This record gives sequence, C-alpha cells and structure tokens, in this order.
Amino acid sequence: MRPVLNLAEPTDPAWIQRALADLDAVLLDHAHAEKKAASAALTLIFRYPERSELLRPLSELAREELEHFEAALGHLERRGVGFTRQKPSPYAGRLQEAVRTAEPGRLVDTLLCCALIEARSCERFQILADRVEDPELAAFYRELLASEARHHGVYADLARKVDPDAPARLRELARHEADVLAQAPGWARLHT
Amino acid sequence: MRPVLNLAEPTDPAWIQRALADLDAVLLDHAHAEKKAASAALTLIFRYPERSELLRPLSELAREELEHFEAALGHLERRGVGFTRQKPSPYAGRLQEAVRTAEPGRLVDTLLCCALIEARSCERFQILADRVEDPELAAFYRELLASEARHHGVYADLARKVDPDAPARLRELARHEADVLAQAPGWARLHT
Repeated sequence: MRPVLNLAEPTDPAWIQRALADLDAVLLDHAHAEKKAASAALTLIFRYPERSELLRPLSELAREELEHFEAALGHLERRGVGFTRQKPSPYAGRLQEAVRTAEPGRLVDTLLCCALIEARSCERFQILADRVEDPELAAFYRELLASEARHHGVYADLARKVDPDAPARLRELARHEADVLAQAPGWARLHT
Repeated sequence: MRPVLNLAEPTDPAWIQRALADLDAVLLDHAHAEKKAASAALTLIFRYPERSELLRPLSELAREELEHFEAALGHLERRGVGFTRQKPSPYAGRLQEAVRTAEPGRLVDTLLCCALIEARSCERFQILADRVEDPELAAFYRELLASEARHHGVYADLARKVDPDAPARLRELARHEADVLAQAPGWARLHT
C-alpha cells in the first residue's frame, strides 16, 4: 500500500461508488466540513492564546477553510442544491474520542486529528478529481488537493513543535482513523 | 452631535485619555476583539445555515476579521507585547442583553449588535489614527477604518433583509449601546 499523507489505509473502493452515486450529498457534506474546519482552527486559537506559535498559522488556515466553504457554496448553487442542515457522519466525533484529556496530550492529539482529517480529504479529493464527470467540480477538487496536503503539514508540524514525539502518536491515531472509517455508516459523505 | 454610523453618542473624551495612556492594553483587547468578531460571524453561519443570504457575506467578513487579528498580532510583536488572556470588558455581553429571544428578533438584534460594535470600533479607530504617536500603529488604525465602516453596513443590510423594520430597531439598540458605554468600567480597552 502506498503511504498517503500518513494515512494507515487507503479509501475503500465502496466509498467511491457511494460518493459518485450522490455527489450532491458529498458536496453538501464538504461545505459543512470546510465550515467546521474553520471553526476547529478558531477554537484552538481561543483555547490556547498563550501558544503564540499556533495563532498565526491557525488563523491563516481558518481563512483558507472559509474560502473553500464559499467555493463549495458556489458549486452547490451552480448544481441547484440548497445549503441545508445534513445529518453529519460520526467520523470526526469518533476520531476525536481518542484525544487524550490531559495537556499537552489534548492539544497534540487535537492537532493530529485535524492533520488526519485534512489527509483523508486530500486523498479523497484526488479520487474525486479523477472520477467526477462534472468538469468544474473535478477542477475544484483538483485545486483543493494542494491546500489539504499543506494543511495536513501545518497541523503535523504544529503538533511536533508542541511534542517531539508527535510523529509516533500520529501513526497510532492514523490506525484509529482507519478503524473509524471501517466502522462508518454507508452514507454518501466526504468522510464515511 | 454628528451622527456617526448610527451611534447614539460619540465617545467620551475620558476614554481617549485612558486609551492613549495604555495603548498596549487597547491593542491586546483589539486583537481579542478581531478574533471574537470572526467567531461571532462563524457562529451565525452555524446557527442559520438555511439563511442563504447570510452565508457568503458572513464568511467573507470572518476572513477579514482574521486578517485583522493577524495584523494586530504583528503590531503587538513589534511593540514587544505578548498575546495573552485579558479580562474582557463587559461591553459586548451587556450590549447583547438586549437581544430578543424569539426569532427572527434574535437574529435581527444579533446582527444589529454586531453592526454597532463595528460602528464603535470605526469611530474609535478614527480617534486613535488621529492621536496615536506610533506612526505604524496610527497607519494601521487608519487602514481599518474603511473595513469597519463596511462591516457595519454589511450587518445593517443583512438585518434589513431579515426584517424591513431593522433600521428603527437599530436606533433603539444604539441608545442601549451608548448607555452600556456610559456605565462601562474605566479600563484601557477598545470597547469600554
């Protein structure tokens, strides 16, 4: 298996079929995910104001997530899909169950979970870019690849600044991430 | 009195003296305020996903607030001031006590309170731009003036889209805002 951005397992081909069969649901989930990613970065800024090394990278990252949110809204509009509430996949919540409760483990694990979510998004945008027939949507996914890979790197680097042992913990959490995906419901979502 | 961006009262000259006497505290409060403004816009996006007219303007506004947060961090660094927690002024909390609890009044009032905070920031950045001796800081305040005035307009326009009677409510809330300021503690903060 080709190691993709520290992921323990590649995406199951069954996900690809589900996603292609309901791209609108995946795109709606993606828009929600960008909004949640911005919120997650902002939450870290609020929670750790004294960690000066986090503030600027996370603020820049939150701005980029919001740009992607706006772009995803644009593609939803173009495809005639309204932005509505949607039952979220349990993926992010299950992933974060592994976050340690004591500091600095809590911060390190939160950063690493964000790194893994970005990595999984990156891997899946590559698949979607190659397989989606709507040329504008395929181009959008291709544009996002580089940002998601960079965001993965930002989170992994920040975690290593907080704790030099973060790379070993990233491997443990990547195994957990693959297990969470293996148990996820068979919905059409970006992260199931 | 010159009507400034729908404010009911101009800033008390006593604030100006307090602010000039501890610009670092005002700048730190300002950095926190930009972060909170981004969070407030994002909170509205999460709370009202079905209000499609709000999503893009608020996302763009949140991105600008984060840019200003990063710029304020830069000025704190340049002046040798660390970004730390700071006892917040009761201003925003007191202001929001007037927000109605039933929808759509809750949304309209929340938007209008944001509009008033932007207006007050704008008025005070004008004062600071004219009075601060640090030329780089004065230039920063001058740059922010136009954004804050525009943000005031974005919030006031969104409120009017939700409720055509919003301008009358804005006048009521502006009176409340002036009362809150009149009772605020005499700290060196952007909003006291």
